[in-house]
Amino acid sequence: MSADIVPGAADRGRTGVTAARGFRVGVAGADVRGDGGSRPDIALIVSETPAVAAGVFTRNAVKAAPVVISQLHIRHGRARAIVVNSGNANACTGARGLGDALQMARAAADEVDCPPGEVLIASTGVIGRTLPMERILPGIARAGRELGGDGEAVARAIMTTDTYPKQASRRLLVGGIEHSVGGVAKGSGMIHPDMATLLAFVTTDASLSPELARALLGAAVDVSFNRISVDGDTSTNDSCMLLANGAAGGPEGLPGTEESALFGQALTEVLGELAEQIVADGEGASRTFSVRVSGALDHSQALRAARTVTTSPLVKTAIHGGDPNWGRILAAVGRSGAELALDRCRLTIQGEELFRMGQVVDGAVERVAPRLQEPRVSIDIDLGVGEAEVVALGCDLTDEYVRINADYST
Amino acid sequence: MSADIVPGAADRGRTGVTAARGFRVGVAGADVRGDGGSRPDIALIVSETPAVAAGVFTRNAVKAAPVVISQLHIRHGRARAIVVNSGNANACTGARGLGDALQMARAAADEVDCPPGEVLIASTGVIGRTLPMERILPGIARAGRELGGDGEAVARAIMTTDTYPKQASRRLLVGGIEHSVGGVAKGSGMIHPDMATLLAFVTTDASLSPELARALLGAAVDVSFNRISVDGDTSTNDSCMLLANGAAGGPEGLPGTEESALFGQALTEVLGELAEQIVADGEGASRTFSVRVSGALDHSQALRAARTVTTSPLVKTAIHGGDPNWGRILAAVGRSGAELALDRCRLTIQGEELFRMGQVVDGAVERVAPRLQEPRVSIDIDLGVGEAEVVALGCDLTDEYVRINADYST
Repeated sequence: MSADIVPGAADRGRTGVTAARGFRVGVAGADVRGDGGSRPDIALIVSETPAVAAGVFTRNAVKAAPVVISQLHIRHGRARAIVVNSGNANACTGARGLGDALQMARAAADEVDCPPGEVLIASTGVIGRTLPMERILPGIARAGRELGGDGEAVARAIMTTDTYPKQASRRLLVGGIEHSVGGVAKGSGMIHPDMATLLAFVTTDASLSPELARALLGAAVDVSFNRISVDGDTSTNDSCMLLANGAAGGPEGLPGTEESALFGQALTEVLGELAEQIVADGEGASRTFSVRVSGALDHSQALRAARTVTTSPLVKTAIHGGDPNWGRILAAVGRSGAELALDRCRLTIQGEELFRMGQVVDGAVERVAPRLQEPRVSIDIDLGVGEAEVVALGCDLTDEYVRINADYST
Repeated sequence: MSADIVPGAADRGRTGVTAARGFRVGVAGADVRGDGGSRPDIALIVSETPAVAAGVFTRNAVKAAPVVISQLHIRHGRARAIVVNSGNANACTGARGLGDALQMARAAADEVDCPPGEVLIASTGVIGRTLPMERILPGIARAGRELGGDGEAVARAIMTTDTYPKQASRRLLVGGIEHSVGGVAKGSGMIHPDMATLLAFVTTDASLSPELARALLGAAVDVSFNRISVDGDTSTNDSCMLLANGAAGGPEGLPGTEESALFGQALTEVLGELAEQIVADGEGASRTFSVRVSGALDHSQALRAARTVTTSPLVKTAIHGGDPNWGRILAAVGRSGAELALDRCRLTIQGEELFRMGQVVDGAVERVAPRLQEPRVSIDIDLGVGEAEVVALGCDLTDEYVRINADYST
């Protein structure tokens, strides 16, 4: 963390997406799941003035309706509100699904008095079922009438099988003015586990140009959410959206390399903290692990090697069992497609070097074994062929993951 | 199966790698695992005359010593013998490991009286431990002194956590002469589960040129072993080797497009049968599933889509739970990188069409649900953009897989 950036909110005592000035939120329970439950499952995030908007969306070719519509709306680079529902993904729902997403935007637009094109939409939940619009539309209206909530209410409304709400925020001085950036996210799984959807919403009272917002968000997502994996399955609904309303009163467009770099770092810290929370709360996870790949030929090879290790079922089960089965890590790196020189490779786990000069280090396996019982395991792999370095995060694969995802019948 | 190809051996009553004429095998117990056990863990497969040899080896950049040496030896295109041990992979063992693999070749060469360069080597087991050569070398000598065994003895000696031995064979008439092709394989897991190594050895009494042997083996592996997945982790030791000794007395080089095509088909059937056995016996597997992807732009996109579905943890757990969670299948296809037109996509499970024209088919989920309790599930996906088609095989992800691979401490 930079000395100029501290955790917390400009608007003291307010958390997550309400940490920045000029943002209001409301939630409502609309029984989206249709099980008669009353838990909040609709959230509305509103900027008091039109905000610059940027978004990063799933690369899955099968995109949910809210993703398709949000990608269209965000082209303008401006938005007033984000409307979200949990309990139903509105994915693989055809023309009807697109119409429903548009209706959600329209209902939210009515509440905040803006064009529907200035509303972004996100949904998470079961795939292939149409939304219960007869309950969702009144729910959006109720959320819109009570826009005095705190960010944590949003964090709870978008939860599915998450076991705790996920928020983060930072304060920083830019040009002598205090700015805030705060975010909320949900991770993997659902009450009816279906998809490891990742949703994240970030607000800031900084004044950004649309281009800068897009660039900073893309860079921050790249080193946070794009570095984590629970099970390697990319959702149809993954979305990360940023609203920047300039309410802090800083100079327009946050110009200047140094200032935008500082803001970019604060944004990266917020997303990084959310990403860590998501991995730690991965479906069935009992332990997390980081994989630092260094000495790679280039960035993309380092990333590929690191992500292959974090998604390998054999590595993930070994981490679960606290098993110093280092051969599985090398084998995963080996199949990743990244270039390596086996005789110059070094593998270090929990600070203990296990493999160098083509073979195991005497006694290292015995030394590292007890340290694999710790809740967080760090793995360092030097590929020995270059200078590029990447860190990725994963969680273990447990019986509980299998149970959550198998013991369910539609 | 072609009418001209039938299961079984030319050398009646003999199975697997002894189905073809002119091959002899021996096994021995050398306590490779070092636990004092007496189970056979060394196997020797010998051709009475020098045979044409072809091999397909792991693409993992971390290659075990026996793979490195076998790839050198097989360049000559000829071999007399294959020596195999289970219980230790001789992988990540540095220069010492290469020397040990060479010693294994030398010991086998002494038994069959050929140059060491005409011996191929394979190992499977735990990574990173040096071989107990003081027990392995006498073991190879004992196996070499008793070359009267049946193929099934080899199938058993190379087993690790396999729950049954895996063999297949075919007879066919080429140029009026009966030929045989038979193979043996081992699948995933070990007593100390470590790597899902795949080893397969195929013998035939057909007379092939080295070029033809390589071409036919490569094509057959491509549509058999390269289409299966237990957990997506590629071993450091995967090897498939073919010996063709011409003992059937057919014309040299099996010339002629039609004859070589027929032989290629028999070879493909043998490997296909072994591949099916391996998936069905995957670690912890309770159910297998096939994924046919059609309507793809090209072969590589079809293959990528099919393999993404067979390796998706969410699909694999859904298959385990008998859950008609079709959205997970579409989401996996969507993230595979294969091009698709969602409104022209069709998804069919157990013959029941579930998704077409961009949305779910009414009532289909309820109709297909009971049929997901069957031991074999078939999934068909039409991407709607081209003509290419591929079938891949997978198995479910179970609590048992996690237990096998986590509840182990080195």
